[in-house]
Amino acid sequence: MKKIMNAAENYTDDMLKGIYSAHPKAVKYAADDLRCFCTANKKEGKVAIITGGGTGHLPLFLGYVGENLLDGCAVGSVFQSPSAEQIFNICQEVNTGAGVLFIYGNYTGDIMNFDMAAEMCDMEDIPTATSIGADDVNSGAPEVRRGVAGIFFMYKCAGAKAAQMGTLDEVKAAAEKAKENTRTVGFALTPCIIPEVGKPNFTLEENEMAMGMGIHGEPGIWNGPIKTAKELAEESLDTLLKDMPVAEGEEVAVLVNGLGATSIEELYILSGNVSEYLAKKGVKIYRTFVGEYATSMEMAGASISICKMADDEMKAWLDMPVATPFYTQK
Amino acid sequence: MKKIMNAAENYTDDMLKGIYSAHPKAVKYAADDLRCFCTANKKEGKVAIITGGGTGHLPLFLGYVGENLLDGCAVGSVFQSPSAEQIFNICQEVNTGAGVLFIYGNYTGDIMNFDMAAEMCDMEDIPTATSIGADDVNSGAPEVRRGVAGIFFMYKCAGAKAAQMGTLDEVKAAAEKAKENTRTVGFALTPCIIPEVGKPNFTLEENEMAMGMGIHGEPGIWNGPIKTAKELAEESLDTLLKDMPVAEGEEVAVLVNGLGATSIEELYILSGNVSEYLAKKGVKIYRTFVGEYATSMEMAGASISICKMADDEMKAWLDMPVATPFYTQK
Repeated sequence: MKKIMNAAENYTDDMLKGIYSAHPKAVKYAADDLRCFCTANKKEGKVAIITGGGTGHLPLFLGYVGENLLDGCAVGSVFQSPSAEQIFNICQEVNTGAGVLFIYGNYTGDIMNFDMAAEMCDMEDIPTATSIGADDVNSGAPEVRRGVAGIFFMYKCAGAKAAQMGTLDEVKAAAEKAKENTRTVGFALTPCIIPEVGKPNFTLEENEMAMGMGIHGEPGIWNGPIKTAKELAEESLDTLLKDMPVAEGEEVAVLVNGLGATSIEELYILSGNVSEYLAKKGVKIYRTFVGEYATSMEMAGASISICKMADDEMKAWLDMPVATPFYTQK
Repeated sequence: MKKIMNAAENYTDDMLKGIYSAHPKAVKYAADDLRCFCTANKKEGKVAIITGGGTGHLPLFLGYVGENLLDGCAVGSVFQSPSAEQIFNICQEVNTGAGVLFIYGNYTGDIMNFDMAAEMCDMEDIPTATSIGADDVNSGAPEVRRGVAGIFFMYKCAGAKAAQMGTLDEVKAAAEKAKENTRTVGFALTPCIIPEVGKPNFTLEENEMAMGMGIHGEPGIWNGPIKTAKELAEESLDTLLKDMPVAEGEEVAVLVNGLGATSIEELYILSGNVSEYLAKKGVKIYRTFVGEYATSMEMAGASISICKMADDEMKAWLDMPVATPFYTQK
C-alpha cells in the first residue's frame, strides 16, 4: 500500500484536522466532534442541506459544504456510514428554523442512520425531508441503484434553490428534479485500498477493466480488456440514453468524473469522445464538467453522468456560482 | 499501461480537442494549431502572459489560462517542449500592444524555444520579458533548479499585477517577487507512464519512495521506505526552511500539491502535518492551497511549496479571484 499517511486508524480524523486547519474561515465542526462537519457561514432563514457518507470519495461528500451548496456533512470512517447522532448534531448546528434537507447516496447504512436522525429531529421539532441519490445505472433496477457522482447535480440544484430562499418542500423538489434527470455509468481500471485493510479486496489483471464497478469496488457488469476512450464513451452513453432517453435537440449537462488515479488528461480525452458521440445523436450539451467530483481514493477509472436540462430554472441552478474549499464555480 | 485513451500518438491532441469542446467560452486556439492555446477573452491594453511546456502535468500549464491569470500556453507533446513558432503564434494572438511576459519552468528545451520566440517577437516589435520558475530545491543549485508546482505563485502574482494593468516591467517584477520567495520539495511513490512508451522508465519497489524526484521522473536525492506524512512534512519543511529561512512570526502561503494518483484525503493528512510543524516553528500561515496544481499524470506522490509573504501587495495578489476551466478561486 503506497499512501501518504500516519497511523491507518487515524486516516479519517487526520484528514479532517488537515481540512479544518487549511480552511478555518469556511468550515468548522459541531459538538466537539471532528466528524460533524459544518459550514462556518450559516445563513439565517435558509433551508439547511446536510449530506453524509464514508470517507474516501473526496470531494464527495464534505467537499460540497459551502456557499450556495450544502451546510453540513456527517463524516464516516473510510467507506462507512456516519452515525445518526452525528447527523442529528449537525442538524442542530445548521438548522435556522427553515428545516433541513438530507441528500445522500442510496446505501443501506446511510439510509438507516439518516432516518434515525430524522426521528431525533422530529422530537426536537426540526422539520426534515430526504432526497436519495441513485444514479448508477449499471448497479441495478432504479430502486436499488447506488448513488455516485450524479449526486453533484442534486447538490447543485438543491443548493441553488435553498440560496434563493426556497421552502423545504421547494428545495427537496429541486433535488428530486435533478435526481429524475440524472444517470451515471462508471468503470474502474484498478482497485483501491482501504487504509486499515492495507491491500486491495480484489484485483484487476494488467489490461483488465471493470465496467459498472461501484465506488467502493462493488462488482460491475463485465470485466474485460481495457477499451479505448471512444468505445467507453459510446458504450456508456448507449447505456445512459437507453435508461433515460434524450430526444434530438434536447440539452444535457455532462459530468466526466475521475475516480482518483486517472489523470485529468485522460478525463478530457474521454470528454472529447462523449461530446462527439452526443453530437452524433443530436443531443446538445448545455455545460460540461470535467474533473474529480466523486472518487475512490487511488482507484483508476472514470464515470460519465448526464443530467437532462428540464427547463431554464434548472440551467440557472447549474450556473449559480458556488464556493467551497474543494469546488468553486464562477 | 492502464490509461483511458485512443491512439497513444494522439494523446495530446485528443486531450486538447476535449478541452476546447468542453470550454468553448473560455479558451480557443490560434493559427489553426490546437497546441496554440489562448484565452477566448482577451483584455485590451493588458500585458499578456504566456506559459508553455509539455503535456502530462495538468492543470499545469494550460489550466492557468483564464481570468486574472494567463493569456496563452504553448502545448508540447507529453513531457516535450512546444516549438518557438507555436509560442510566437500565441504572442501574435494575445498581445494587445502592452507586451508579453513569458513564465515557464527551468528546462533546457523550453528556454531555447521561448528565447527563439522572443527574437521572433522582437522582429515584429512585440516587447517580451521572461521569468523562469526554478523552485525545486532538491534538484540542485538555484541556477539549475527545475520549475515545479511553485510556479503557481508566479502565475498568481503576475496574473494579478497584469489584471491591475501593470506595465510589462511591473508584471515581470511581480513574477520575480513570487519566484524569490517560493521553494518546493516533492516526492514520488510510483512512476508514471508516457503513453507512447507504454511502460514506466524506472520502478519503485513496494513500500519504496523517492524524495526529490522531478515531475518527469528525474532522480531524487534518496530512495527508501515510505515515510509517514508527519516525517515527510518535517523533512520537506526542514529542507525548504534551510534553503529559504523564514523568521518566527513571518507569514507564508502553503501549497500541498498532488502529483496525480495520490488521493485528496492523503494531501489533507499531509497538509495537517505541514501546518502543525510550521506552527511549532512559529511560522504563520497566510493561506493554504491543497489539491492538484502540477501533476505527472498517474504518478503517486506530492509536493510541498512555501511562498513567503513579502508584503501586503503580495497577499492581495494571492487573494485576487481567478477563473479558468481548471482552477477557480473566489
